[in-house]
Amino acid sequence: MRHLITLDGLRRDQLERLLDLAQALRPNALRGTDHQPLRGLTVANLFFEPSTRTRSSFQLAAQRLGADVLNFDADRSSTRKGETLADTLRNLEAMGASLFVVRHAEDGAVQSLAEAAAPNTSIINAGDGRNAHPTQGLLDMLTIRQHKGTDFSGLKVVIAGDIRHSRVARSDIHALRTLGVSELRLAGPDPLLPGDEATFAGLRRYRNFDEALDGCDVVMMLRLQRERMEEGLVESLEGYYRDWGLSPERLALAARDAIVLHPGPMNRGVEIADAVADGPQSVILEQVSNGVAVRMAVLETLARK
Amino acid sequence: MRHLITLDGLRRDQLERLLDLAQALRPNALRGTDHQPLRGLTVANLFFEPSTRTRSSFQLAAQRLGADVLNFDADRSSTRKGETLADTLRNLEAMGASLFVVRHAEDGAVQSLAEAAAPNTSIINAGDGRNAHPTQGLLDMLTIRQHKGTDFSGLKVVIAGDIRHSRVARSDIHALRTLGVSELRLAGPDPLLPGDEATFAGLRRYRNFDEALDGCDVVMMLRLQRERMEEGLVESLEGYYRDWGLSPERLALAARDAIVLHPGPMNRGVEIADAVADGPQSVILEQVSNGVAVRMAVLETLARK
Amino acid sequence: MRHLITLDGLRRDQLERLLDLAQALRPNALRGTDHQPLRGLTVANLFFEPSTRTRSSFQLAAQRLGADVLNFDADRSSTRKGETLADTLRNLEAMGASLFVVRHAEDGAVQSLAEAAAPNTSIINAGDGRNAHPTQGLLDMLTIRQHKGTDFSGLKVVIAGDIRHSRVARSDIHALRTLGVSELRLAGPDPLLPGDEATFAGLRRYRNFDEALDGCDVVMMLRLQRERMEEGLVESLEGYYRDWGLSPERLALAARDAIVLHPGPMNRGVEIADAVADGPQSVILEQVSNGVAVRMAVLETLARK
Repeated sequence: MRHLITLDGLRRDQLERLLDLAQALRPNALRGTDHQPLRGLTVANLFFEPSTRTRSSFQLAAQRLGADVLNFDADRSSTRKGETLADTLRNLEAMGASLFVVRHAEDGAVQSLAEAAAPNTSIINAGDGRNAHPTQGLLDMLTIRQHKGTDFSGLKVVIAGDIRHSRVARSDIHALRTLGVSELRLAGPDPLLPGDEATFAGLRRYRNFDEALDGCDVVMMLRLQRERMEEGLVESLEGYYRDWGLSPERLALAARDAIVLHPGPMNRGVEIADAVADGPQSVILEQVSNGVAVRMAVLETLARK
Repeated sequence: MRHLITLDGLRRDQLERLLDLAQALRPNALRGTDHQPLRGLTVANLFFEPSTRTRSSFQLAAQRLGADVLNFDADRSSTRKGETLADTLRNLEAMGASLFVVRHAEDGAVQSLAEAAAPNTSIINAGDGRNAHPTQGLLDMLTIRQHKGTDFSGLKVVIAGDIRHSRVARSDIHALRTLGVSELRLAGPDPLLPGDEATFAGLRRYRNFDEALDGCDVVMMLRLQRERMEEGLVESLEGYYRDWGLSPERLALAARDAIVLHPGPMNRGVEIADAVADGPQSVILEQVSNGVAVRMAVLETLARK
Repeated sequence: MRHLITLDGLRRDQLERLLDLAQALRPNALRGTDHQPLRGLTVANLFFEPSTRTRSSFQLAAQRLGADVLNFDADRSSTRKGETLADTLRNLEAMGASLFVVRHAEDGAVQSLAEAAAPNTSIINAGDGRNAHPTQGLLDMLTIRQHKGTDFSGLKVVIAGDIRHSRVARSDIHALRTLGVSELRLAGPDPLLPGDEATFAGLRRYRNFDEALDGCDVVMMLRLQRERMEEGLVESLEGYYRDWGLSPERLALAARDAIVLHPGPMNRGVEIADAVADGPQSVILEQVSNGVAVRMAVLETLARK
């Protein structure tokens, strides 16, 4: 493994090795320790789309492994002055950065950058357009594994909300399929369900949330972007909550020990009720902690290559 | 002590223990050393109101104690995306941050956040609205102590300027009273003097700066925010300087060995003359150095809890 | 040496000592090592003009020498609140910063700041107006030396493009003259050639790029700022490329083993063709790597003083 651009196409043993390493690093994830395999290396955070949360998670992961971190704020950077993305990359490589964490608003932009990278450089996709967010997919899998065990074959999983525009959903689906989940359901209002993409082929779609939840072991909620209202894809936030919000009553339709995931930041009272977000079945903050462990595992794996 | 939200209500021995520790850390404050009790810990700077200066002071304090520092820029953060303050806090906790330095424009916002914090989290108020700025109060006390000794009972202190809107004044008054200062005077134009608050009860108010300065040992100047002019509370900067600016002539009315403090950033020629700001009685830069020591003391104390 | 404000007036042995140290630090420049002579010290990056690239280079140089780095973002800082530049400096000094990297849009602003600095403070000019960019000059010299040897006396060098507005050109010329280059040519369209300054006295000016390139060993390209078009100094980017762009055909007029430098960020297809920028004679990325080494050498030299 040289880059991590997407979970699509990753073999099951590759996925599981990353998850095993993340699990092993879990005790190191929340506090710096002497385990510093990245000492002397420089990790560059290249965010062409703002995201303090994901960037912070990567920054802490890198620091806890002993790396130096360069936050390269693309808003105020040379790309602004007309420099190409590839030239920005090559410049930071020439300064010694060897691991790049890249977020970009366009599908495929991170892959293009990986193609322009020097032989010793590794690129990690921190989210590109609607395409992929592989470390989010991995941290979701780690969280499910911690609650449901490593055998996903008997699990019923529902992904609910704005699947069409979600890179999180795409990365989750790639991982869940590779890990052999038996039943994977997509739930959302019609304008937010995805089109005719290979990623979603063969998955059952539900236009009724109650039906979709029935008997599920894992409920993966998605964030509703405010833009969807402005675009007319969602009529009102109240209506959205009524039909697609995860209330305690609705959650009761899932398995008794179902867990609830959300990639954050949450719109409380829109896609999720307070009582669920903060309730005993929510694993949302565990996801955040696992995010640091997963990013450490990815950085360590790529640095070793 | 778990959080530091205000100096109001802190016992004298608590205050003095913090000041003693800050004094002991003073040699470590301006240069990194091997004293790194926060190694492995993460300090998050959560500034919902911009302040490079205070944030830098906290960042250096944390780094000199060996902590990792996360500057979480609230302007560009998830709070922007509709996330609640408490969710932002919980997310950073879940990433391993255990000490939070928080500035917020609203009175009481930092206290609310402290109530939402996890049991192992400590919150330090870096300024909330007009309410409190406890580390500024502490660094002012440390500076006075270095010049006037630990017994404040014989001191005459004047606080001058925009007291009404000043969290610095409020924190200074709480500390000065606890430390037993004998005479505490408030001086400023009527619209900038405070209303009927307990904090100011029993303190003598002066509408004439010359009278207020008479015989004082400590002169604590406040910054005049430009907003006060726009709000019509101050007529002109020239008029303000004439009536409320600390000129060398005016300072001569105070005790011969009076010291002059200012929390910065200074408006030279508005609330303070160059000759005073840069003169032999000014301890303004000592305040800045003491700020790092005081913040180290607070971080170390709370981390130890 | 206490500050580094300009290369003008630096003696040849001073210049060469810096280049020798940079060359010796070259293996340490791209990866952190145990060579940490700045451990415990604080380097403050004070950028009053945005520049992620130069700031990143200085940040990495400082970190690789073990320093703590404070990025003081002048856009959001106290200078915004009316504080003077000198007060900002003195505040950061009072917090323990002893090495300052300063960029400012005005000629001479960094020199003024150096005059206000405390006795133990060192200031490094990271670019002021059109005046000087000494570390860029040094890294260019280091790059030339690596390819052409330490004796510059036989070299023919051309500097091409917007020389009039370029601090890079001025610093290069000061260094090239001090290092005894035999023939130094200035090439550019008339409105972009410099006026009657001592720096350029006696240097031959070319209004035809082909003639200027003839037989040169070193070709130093400059960036064309988009503002030049808006100001009417350049008619069109296409016309500029036709007359002043470095194409492979044009480069063939220089010596067979000529090297091409560019300070970045490049406007590909404006002042330089892709085939040249990415071709075998380009040393542009070596310049970037040398930039880190040179900045380490400057920081280490000034810290030692």
